Amino acid sequence: MTNDENNLLVSNKNGMTHHMKAPHDEHSPSDERKLIASTPKPPYYAVVFSSLRTGEDEAGYGQMATRMQELAAEQPGYLGIEPARGDDGLGITVSYWQDLQSIRAWRQHSEHQLAQQLGKSRWYAAYTLRIARVEAEVSTDE
Amino acid sequence: MTNDENNLLVSNKNGMTHHMKAPHDEHSPSDERKLIASTPKPPYYAVVFSSLRTGEDEAGYGQMATRMQELAAEQPGYLGIEPARGDDGLGITVSYWQDLQSIRAWRQHSEHQLAQQLGKSRWYAAYTLRIARVEAEVSTDE
Repeated sequence: MTNDENNLLVSNKNGMTHHMKAPHDEHSPSDERKLIASTPKPPYYAVVFSSLRTGEDEAGYGQMATRMQELAAEQPGYLGIEPARGDDGLGITVSYWQDLQSIRAWRQHSEHQLAQQLGKSRWYAAYTLRIARVEAEVSTDE
Repeated sequence: MTNDENNLLVSNKNGMTHHMKAPHDEHSPSDERKLIASTPKPPYYAVVFSSLRTGEDEAGYGQMATRMQELAAEQPGYLGIEPARGDDGLGITVSYWQDLQSIRAWRQHSEHQLAQQLGKSRWYAAYTLRIARVEAEVSTDE
């Protein structure tokens, strides 16, 4: 590891400047590190999907979730996905996209539309989906 | 505290406008629904913090996480927070803010800065923090 990597200075156009310590490479095996999406330099887009499950049809939901993650990864403009669901039931899945067009196309994909319908009618007790333009990123990877 | 920090906090307070929606209590009797943040009409900002823990000092981390959530909720411009950490270790915490100024002020809060330092040196194996402008929101509540 170089000195530069040990003492990072990250700034962005919003004027935020961060002095970052060295990443803990020795503690983070590469497979685990990949759980955090490796995204390009901003700007790009994030879809933040926060949800609560009904608890109904767990198996069907799990299958569909896996399938949708695989299918999303094949779409133009896809940059990555991060899913997490805690013990309290709150799930947050953030997917990252090149631009609004690619998000729109993915939301209109026929197989994804079916999944969305099943989500509304069967799997989700409540959800909020937010589309956001990522303007700055700070990472232990940089 | 430097002059810059003073100016930031003052202008932040002066510039603060709240566009809070009514609570969704009548539509969501359960406490569970409240796990999803009730945010105003976009635009507003989201801070997406994706992290992997070292596994070190779980108790200290838990205490600090709770304290930081309470403290964040007291800051000007705070709109809500959604934390989730899955079994694979990936944690996603999304906090919502009125504007970039309120995010900057919170990141410079002295107690929060101490937490950030401990996070880097002890609790997080890796993380990525993204600042994003929420442009659209779709919710089962609306």
